[in-house]
Amino acid sequence: MPGPRTVEISRTECLRLLRYESFVGRVAFAVEGAVHLRPVNYVADERSLVFCTTRGSVFAAVSSGTPLVFEVDASQPLDHSGWSVIVRGKAAEITDPVELTLLRRGPLKSWAVSASEQWIRLDIEEISGVRIPAH
Amino acid sequence: MPGPRTVEISRTECLRLLRYESFVGRVAFAVEGAVHLRPVNYVADERSLVFCTTRGSVFAAVSSGTPLVFEVDASQPLDHSGWSVIVRGKAAEITDPVELTLLRRGPLKSWAVSASEQWIRLDIEEISGVRIPAH
Repeated sequence: MPGPRTVEISRTECLRLLRYESFVGRVAFAVEGAVHLRPVNYVADERSLVFCTTRGSVFAAVSSGTPLVFEVDASQPLDHSGWSVIVRGKAAEITDPVELTLLRRGPLKSWAVSASEQWIRLDIEEISGVRIPAH
Repeated sequence: MPGPRTVEISRTECLRLLRYESFVGRVAFAVEGAVHLRPVNYVADERSLVFCTTRGSVFAAVSSGTPLVFEVDASQPLDHSGWSVIVRGKAAEITDPVELTLLRRGPLKSWAVSASEQWIRLDIEEISGVRIPAH
């Protein structure tokens, strides 16, 4: 729900912000009531986004179908403005060898994880966002 | 769990990063398996952090004792370095009138929410972080 100083962002603008205005987001999910949350490098198109995770990590353990929440934001301290976009969808490990080969060539390079590690796709089922205009 | 290129950050350094190196974090919690996540302006000391939320919002609905996860991070695109700090603790609405008066005077000014709205404290029960060194 937007706060009193926030305005909702259209779906088209949410997709533009997600695709072109950020390269680090945060992915979250719940396991038995406990929330796991961490930043990831990602790349998005109109339908899904992809990020890389370490084999054996809790994020690699998301089974296909686990509901994920993904967030990107930006802040301008000078005028107290900013925006935030939230994506909801389900996790799916990418296992197709051709697709993996393409992904490992780039352009997405995780800063934290080698490209040989596990790749997760999040289908964009819901996307919404809010903006705090400059004031 | 740190990835292959990440190093753990000491508790002392995590607290320094939380207190002095960021002013926007993301708070997350689970309700009946669904994760809620959004950015907030915050202020922290060594024991807790405080943020402001809108009455009637899902974040105002966290009852005292709800486990919260809080995340701050920073990224340097030029050298693919960054850090992330995660705090875990329980939510508590601040109801003491003296404390509320002090909080409403500042220095924390939420960009999105009027200071007359609801204030939530998160006691820092766990804090941890990882850094991706420049490479």
